Amino acid sequence: MTVLEQTTRARAAALALAGATRAAKDAGLHAMADALNEAGTAVLEANAADVARAEAAGTSAALVDRLRLTPDRVAGMVDGLRQVAALPDPVGDVVRGWTNPDGVQVRQLRVPFGVVGIIYEARPNVTADAAGLCLKSGNASLLRGSSSAAESNRAVVDALRAGLVEAGLPADAVQLVPGPRAVTDELMAARGQVDVLIPRGGAGLIEHVVRHAQVPVIETGVGNCHLVVDASADPAMALEILLNAKVQRPSVCNAVETLLVHADAAATFLPLALPALAAAGVTVHGDARVATYGDVVPATEEDWGTEYLSLDLAAAVVDDLDAALAHVRRWSTGHSETIVTGSQRSAARFTAEVDAAAVLVNASSRFVDGGELGFGAEIGISTQKLHARGPMGLAEMTSTKYVVTGSGQTRR
Amino acid sequence: MTVLEQTTRARAAALALAGATRAAKDAGLHAMADALNEAGTAVLEANAADVARAEAAGTSAALVDRLRLTPDRVAGMVDGLRQVAALPDPVGDVVRGWTNPDGVQVRQLRVPFGVVGIIYEARPNVTADAAGLCLKSGNASLLRGSSSAAESNRAVVDALRAGLVEAGLPADAVQLVPGPRAVTDELMAARGQVDVLIPRGGAGLIEHVVRHAQVPVIETGVGNCHLVVDASADPAMALEILLNAKVQRPSVCNAVETLLVHADAAATFLPLALPALAAAGVTVHGDARVATYGDVVPATEEDWGTEYLSLDLAAAVVDDLDAALAHVRRWSTGHSETIVTGSQRSAARFTAEVDAAAVLVNASSRFVDGGELGFGAEIGISTQKLHARGPMGLAEMTSTKYVVTGSGQTRR
Repeated sequence: MTVLEQTTRARAAALALAGATRAAKDAGLHAMADALNEAGTAVLEANAADVARAEAAGTSAALVDRLRLTPDRVAGMVDGLRQVAALPDPVGDVVRGWTNPDGVQVRQLRVPFGVVGIIYEARPNVTADAAGLCLKSGNASLLRGSSSAAESNRAVVDALRAGLVEAGLPADAVQLVPGPRAVTDELMAARGQVDVLIPRGGAGLIEHVVRHAQVPVIETGVGNCHLVVDASADPAMALEILLNAKVQRPSVCNAVETLLVHADAAATFLPLALPALAAAGVTVHGDARVATYGDVVPATEEDWGTEYLSLDLAAAVVDDLDAALAHVRRWSTGHSETIVTGSQRSAARFTAEVDAAAVLVNASSRFVDGGELGFGAEIGISTQKLHARGPMGLAEMTSTKYVVTGSGQTRR
Repeated sequence: MTVLEQTTRARAAALALAGATRAAKDAGLHAMADALNEAGTAVLEANAADVARAEAAGTSAALVDRLRLTPDRVAGMVDGLRQVAALPDPVGDVVRGWTNPDGVQVRQLRVPFGVVGIIYEARPNVTADAAGLCLKSGNASLLRGSSSAAESNRAVVDALRAGLVEAGLPADAVQLVPGPRAVTDELMAARGQVDVLIPRGGAGLIEHVVRHAQVPVIETGVGNCHLVVDASADPAMALEILLNAKVQRPSVCNAVETLLVHADAAATFLPLALPALAAAGVTVHGDARVATYGDVVPATEEDWGTEYLSLDLAAAVVDDLDAALAHVRRWSTGHSETIVTGSQRSAARFTAEVDAAAVLVNASSRFVDGGELGFGAEIGISTQKLHARGPMGLAEMTSTKYVVTGSGQTRR
């Protein structure tokens, strides 16, 4: 099937989904979960083939781990679909509404986008997660996964589509988009056919999609996140937040990558922090002033711009809050930026002046996540300023429509 | 100055604007209005030079009319700035806010985009309007006007910048972006430097910017708008709405371009409508079934896709509401679509199934406008689904930021 044939089928399915009740969509999600559960063995067999192919090709262990499904991971996908069914339906929510002086009634309602394309890398669990969030928000999904996960994704999507049919919903509401690399380009050029593209994966993938797509894109997730320890920070609080934000799950976008210590706090904080970081297995890439407090790998310019996603941390001493703000302005990817401070004035300046999806005061950046913020689920964390910024839940998977109702009014 | 130098200055100005109070911005807007008022003669002289150049080049009368400023039009620009000063400031509005069970406080605040680029055609009044709306929403503006209006735009921007300086705000909050065509391409490629691009003008301009920009774009305004006269429509109401939507101001995007009449209403409605349209100076491009009720220009396929922006109207008889919905789905640009009906069921189907920024029942599509909807002012009408859809007021000129405040909380 060509991409155009797939998008045409997706548009037809989207029309049906837009009119589906919450009950119908939730029944669809549970049927998808049941079908995926029943297909568990087939999914694991397909995944074993993908994993064997990846290993034979000499793929890195980390990548193979992302690709690998286990009975637990399949169960997680099944549970995820049921959790999405339990969330409120954003479609039809009245965002605003009023009556004009002439009696014309105006309501702004949430409506689905229509057709959402997801371009993603090796994790096959994204297939079920994205399909579920799209379905609940009334959108047909076109799932462009990685060729390395082709058989796993095929097995998952076959099960999801069988579930949709079981529930009386169109199978084409969820479609895998297979084929060579050129297919991704076709998807990115499908203006008018695909309403929104959401790339999920590494910085290279996201940058490629943002630069080349003619379809509107929601940019997600690159997080070069900073933690500033202000002069007035409580050292124990700063250390606890730093360790949590760096160590609790270093591979995710809301983990801290650079520590900036106010010069007045350095002599107290760094002798505490450096041994604690070392004990936690963190390699510190420090500037010359940090190096005076302990053994560090010398930091280069490149370190300030790196999203390590590992147990590495860039660290510098800054003269004052202005220098910290300038460093963040220069290197931030606009994801999540944190200050630990006892000063109301520093907190106010930092929250006002830092331009990021989330700005945190005396709390771990690991809270910047749809689940933690109470959205129930998330399709990703937007680092762009249009449409949605920060964690994207179901409401962020919708557009709006004005419905204007009169009794014959015309404009003067 | 290069585009990069201009964007760098704009970013510095945006940082100052983001921290400016409403009072400071309103004072800036009034100072801009005062300065523009004082510069009235200089602006009119500059405009006379642009107009003379356009006439010498054989530019069409309609285009020259758009380009021409009069004392009234300049006064309109001055008043527009003062009206924007009177509107509420969206920046700092709390969109949502809550406290998590662990005591972490979350607020989602409106913040400026930062630097907004406006790419527009011959109307020099857009220069002041766009600069004013950007300033009020805390954004620095880069104004890429048409070369045909170069001297007018220069005179207007000189006045606006003098006003900003008078009010103690950075002059670089408002910059004209002059230069050859390649400069537009540079602006469209300035990812990371320009936060949002808003093209304002004809379909060709908008399509070009949407297709080629790497900076996020808000697509505005092409309106191939339909009016459906349902079987159960009150013929008098339908005629009044049709005439208003077609004739009151035919050159704007929310004017009706195609009339679709339900077969059961045709024999009653068309013998009323065709003479009334003719009397109002409207040329009807009708299909064969419309032609049985009066003299019309035979409609071709092209008519269904044309946004006339003139006293022309495409017209067809459709078998039923399904056929009307299919026609709208095929040809709509997703701006404003209207049904006149006495049937609750038809109204519900139309509002649910038509995918457009605004869907109207028994009211003129001319109401789809920021002023009419009560937004006070508008930068344009978005026909895209991301970020803003429909008329864009000041709130739509902002992004948001999550501010997360704790007392040392970390994630478990």
